[in-house]
Amino acid sequence: MLHWSTKETKKTTYACSVCKRKKTKCDKLIPCTSCVQKGLEAECLTSATANYTSKLGERSSEYLPTLLELWQSYEYWIMDIGLLKTKNINTLKKTVDMIADLNECDFWMKLLNMEASFKLLNFAMEQLGALHFGCLGELADLYPQLEHYWRRREEAEESETHIFLTSDNYYSNALLWAFFTISVYYMPLDQLAKLFDSKSVCKWLEVNPLDEWTEQLSYELFRGFTNTTIMQLNKAKFMMYPDIRLLQTYIILNSTSFTFSDHILVDSLIIQCMNVAKLFSIDFYKPFNDDDEATEISKNRFAKIWYLLCIADYLQSGPSKLISFHSEIPSLFLQPSFFEFNSSTDIFHEDSNFELMCWKIISLDRDIDKYLNQVAKPRMGTLDNIRKELAKVEKQISLKQKKEKTSRSTLEKFITTFLINSVFWKIHKAYLVYYQVEQSLSVSIHYTKTLIALLVKNVTEGNSIFNKHPYVFRIISRIAPFYEFYSIFQQTDQILQIKADLNELISTFSLMFGEKINNLLFILDRLHGLEILWTRVQVIGSGLTAIHPVFKILQNDMKFINRYNRRVPMVIKGTGNIAPRNRYNTGEDESIKNFDEDEANFKVAALETEEFKMIVSTFENEYNIDNLIT
Amino acid sequence: MLHWSTKETKKTTYACSVCKRKKTKCDKLIPCTSCVQKGLEAECLTSATANYTSKLGERSSEYLPTLLELWQSYEYWIMDIGLLKTKNINTLKKTVDMIADLNECDFWMKLLNMEASFKLLNFAMEQLGALHFGCLGELADLYPQLEHYWRRREEAEESETHIFLTSDNYYSNALLWAFFTISVYYMPLDQLAKLFDSKSVCKWLEVNPLDEWTEQLSYELFRGFTNTTIMQLNKAKFMMYPDIRLLQTYIILNSTSFTFSDHILVDSLIIQCMNVAKLFSIDFYKPFNDDDEATEISKNRFAKIWYLLCIADYLQSGPSKLISFHSEIPSLFLQPSFFEFNSSTDIFHEDSNFELMCWKIISLDRDIDKYLNQVAKPRMGTLDNIRKELAKVEKQISLKQKKEKTSRSTLEKFITTFLINSVFWKIHKAYLVYYQVEQSLSVSIHYTKTLIALLVKNVTEGNSIFNKHPYVFRIISRIAPFYEFYSIFQQTDQILQIKADLNELISTFSLMFGEKINNLLFILDRLHGLEILWTRVQVIGSGLTAIHPVFKILQNDMKFINRYNRRVPMVIKGTGNIAPRNRYNTGEDESIKNFDEDEANFKVAALETEEFKMIVSTFENEYNIDNLIT
Repeated sequence: MLHWSTKETKKTTYACSVCKRKKTKCDKLIPCTSCVQKGLEAECLTSATANYTSKLGERSSEYLPTLLELWQSYEYWIMDIGLLKTKNINTLKKTVDMIADLNECDFWMKLLNMEASFKLLNFAMEQLGALHFGCLGELADLYPQLEHYWRRREEAEESETHIFLTSDNYYSNALLWAFFTISVYYMPLDQLAKLFDSKSVCKWLEVNPLDEWTEQLSYELFRGFTNTTIMQLNKAKFMMYPDIRLLQTYIILNSTSFTFSDHILVDSLIIQCMNVAKLFSIDFYKPFNDDDEATEISKNRFAKIWYLLCIADYLQSGPSKLISFHSEIPSLFLQPSFFEFNSSTDIFHEDSNFELMCWKIISLDRDIDKYLNQVAKPRMGTLDNIRKELAKVEKQISLKQKKEKTSRSTLEKFITTFLINSVFWKIHKAYLVYYQVEQSLSVSIHYTKTLIALLVKNVTEGNSIFNKHPYVFRIISRIAPFYEFYSIFQQTDQILQIKADLNELISTFSLMFGEKINNLLFILDRLHGLEILWTRVQVIGSGLTAIHPVFKILQNDMKFINRYNRRVPMVIKGTGNIAPRNRYNTGEDESIKNFDEDEANFKVAALETEEFKMIVSTFENEYNIDNLIT
Repeated sequence: MLHWSTKETKKTTYACSVCKRKKTKCDKLIPCTSCVQKGLEAECLTSATANYTSKLGERSSEYLPTLLELWQSYEYWIMDIGLLKTKNINTLKKTVDMIADLNECDFWMKLLNMEASFKLLNFAMEQLGALHFGCLGELADLYPQLEHYWRRREEAEESETHIFLTSDNYYSNALLWAFFTISVYYMPLDQLAKLFDSKSVCKWLEVNPLDEWTEQLSYELFRGFTNTTIMQLNKAKFMMYPDIRLLQTYIILNSTSFTFSDHILVDSLIIQCMNVAKLFSIDFYKPFNDDDEATEISKNRFAKIWYLLCIADYLQSGPSKLISFHSEIPSLFLQPSFFEFNSSTDIFHEDSNFELMCWKIISLDRDIDKYLNQVAKPRMGTLDNIRKELAKVEKQISLKQKKEKTSRSTLEKFITTFLINSVFWKIHKAYLVYYQVEQSLSVSIHYTKTLIALLVKNVTEGNSIFNKHPYVFRIISRIAPFYEFYSIFQQTDQILQIKADLNELISTFSLMFGEKINNLLFILDRLHGLEILWTRVQVIGSGLTAIHPVFKILQNDMKFINRYNRRVPMVIKGTGNIAPRNRYNTGEDESIKNFDEDEANFKVAALETEEFKMIVSTFENEYNIDNLIT
């Protein structure tokens, strides 16, 4: 149950109505764990609406605070989980073919010639250092590695007998291909055109030959290179022969849209990475006074790898990755002493502490986002303290960055500044949502504009490739729907302006973000559809019958994603309904559409008029939420 | 530091000498975590011996209790970790070839004809039900699955174009091949001979053709089938498309020696299994009063899968698998209420609760074994309570088993009885080690004899295939070295007799346990070598110089395995000594031999005479501990 009436009733009991009725302990999640275990998540989610109806009929400005709290759950389920972490995994419908995958990998490996490979590595070193320097040892060693790669290739071609390669060889390939992959991901089309022949790629993809490189074509190249990198890891048998290059390869790929386009594979990989990190004691990086120099360097490197892994782990966590490790690093705000050894010994260290800075910012993000999809709300003082910590980090970064002016530091500066402003945005959104602090809306819009300005600045300064960083998509895909949601209920010039700015920005998003761009546009379009529905449909009456179709639809959306993520499998195919009736079977698309048949829903449904149902179903057919996950 | 003098000094401080000196918190592990983090594990381990020297020169019966406590660490490092969970993972030396693996898989798939496949499935169903019924749904569904398998094969052969298979198809293959694998693992040679042609297997393996099946040949068949099963999982892309059949396939394979022959692959697999189990809410199995029948059945099945996974997870845990999940189920002895819902609703349920019983026994094993490699010792009352709980479980099982007389229940009875007696053995070993309880030695020997008798009974009753269960190897490989160790310092007729019995038993072990048999024999042989060294070498003098070479060797053994499991990788190849000097690099065999160069060791080494060093090095060359892990 959402904490619906913040201002009116000071003394609210937080338990959901089901838990209250059953006298069970409620953990305040939406839906709460107890309800989920009992298969009553629909009723738990519905109970929110029931409490809401009494407010209808009042002016929208009065119930807006309540609506905004609904947003916190909607943001969690639709933007975080639905958009980025939900995928149809019906094994019955997934065609797999290892031989075809091997052939594909061979094609991409043959496409890349020696000259192009050195240019790609150069590009990764010169332009994208910020994305991977932290996880690597001696960079100069990569060029001999690439020479070895070509020597192996030559030997294999010249030799008449079969050449045996070691797991080490394939790990080396994987690391090099990870570099090639980020280079083709970030490289501008005109540079890419000099390295690869578009026609042979078109031929392979069986599309009409193009004379020049398009973003769509370079996206296919990037996907092919990603698959080739993963194949090298598979060939190295990474589950049998652990190696730190698994972590490095993963970290490098993680700076591309691979991180959300194949989220289940990424979840599996990060869990393996954590296993290997612990096997190699990567998480034992705390410095001791009696460490010798080699140990110090090594620990410094391990700390960075661990921070990078924990950031990735935090960003991936959700219902499909319930095993997580980032919580092993405490909150910067709750336990600053944990970070002291680092800030004292490391902050002005010659060697960049970019990764630690990123982790600090992300950990503050974590401190705020943990209230998403929770009935409990952060105390005002907590928000203030997080804001202060963030300001400290911001100052540290600006001190450090004044001294540096390399292309690496430019990218580092962009990423950290972008992250910091996004967390500031979240803090002010939280002030608005939970405490209706005056000016919060304007301040949040200010930070949105700052974020947009940073992206525009990249373009004007010739760094538009930075805008392909997955953080850009992650953050804008939270912010844009918020204002679209807000404007369903309240429209001001300020809101309309920022919506227009965001839409314009999204229209310039790189196609390298893949299909997720379409999903984001679908969400925005759908929220706009709800805005129209909101103005067109007038609800008359009171009590349960007075629910507006818009709330019903928003609620159904959350239920849909929640349900989809509570899959319970058949124990073995063909045993019929061994799976709990109230839950979905894995990816059985047909059954997903039947969730209105739940008992809990029946009770509410009985009170809904035919007209109401028709409005809801017409909208849901027109804007089918299914599109978000297929 | 080991808790050396139990009886003499009542008030012992448990912290290790390094932690005492540095005034840091000591967690009492051997070596302790603080020392490991500082790279001082050698000194931490050595400190044990220093405290020991004052006792030398007295009669062996007097310092035997102290020696037995040393055994607890030795058992942990050499038997549990060294024998079962340590492997050379030097990627530079591991040749990998995916195409060869695919060809191998094709060979085994072609070797198996339709008739043989049905017979293997029959064997798994009729003889080995106890090993997999708990994790499956409807058994009758497996035969149609096998028919589908052959239909797919036929289609692929007849069709001129490429047939596309789904991930679901490969999962189905994986499950079927897991059954084929356990069947060839357990099947007697004469039955195997009727299903497979030994000559074509010999030809494939490029060995001289044999007219009949040998255990060695059937081991190769088993290995090939295991690889084929894993390949089906890979082809299903299990890291991308999660499915419960990953768990089932893993659980079935886990009843073979696969579980310790490829321990790192198994570690990786179990972590993926846990991820999938949580994704599908397998761990939400607690029954509620308002569950409908389908939900109840489903939860019952999930509980069993979760217990089986947690058993596997517990048995695999160690320095190379630091991520574990079994601790999510509390101890039966410390929190019996957790299990109440199960014992009340389930114990006399028609559906067998074999998996819960196994978990209960294993959880009591966990309660005792957690004191292995710890300075802290269990309170006498704790041991008594564990013994009582175990007796209760024993009673539950015997009540249940009186009613049943199927081949499935015979195997279930053997496994549970064997496990129970092994835990009783551990309890009495603990009484002996920590409290020198009179008769404990005899009682432990009694339980050893009971275990041997159970194995002999299997042979006489025509169930000798049961003796191939990996638990048999796990348990005997802990017990046999204990008496071999004991007899270094004290020999009685009773000890000599049980040693002879155990050696005879091990000589009859199935070759299906693989190379680990040789490793176990090596450990036993080596301990016997130490016995000879003990009687031959007289140590004169006192203080540090009086250390007997035998202790030095035992200590070095533990250091070796400990060190080998504290690998720290080069961050990137070729960066030289970025890894802490005090630790091993991944599988760089050369550096492993240099661990005597540690500073901590130097101090002790300076006090060792040349003669002493020569005795130690002669023995270590003759019985090179390296053999345990290569």
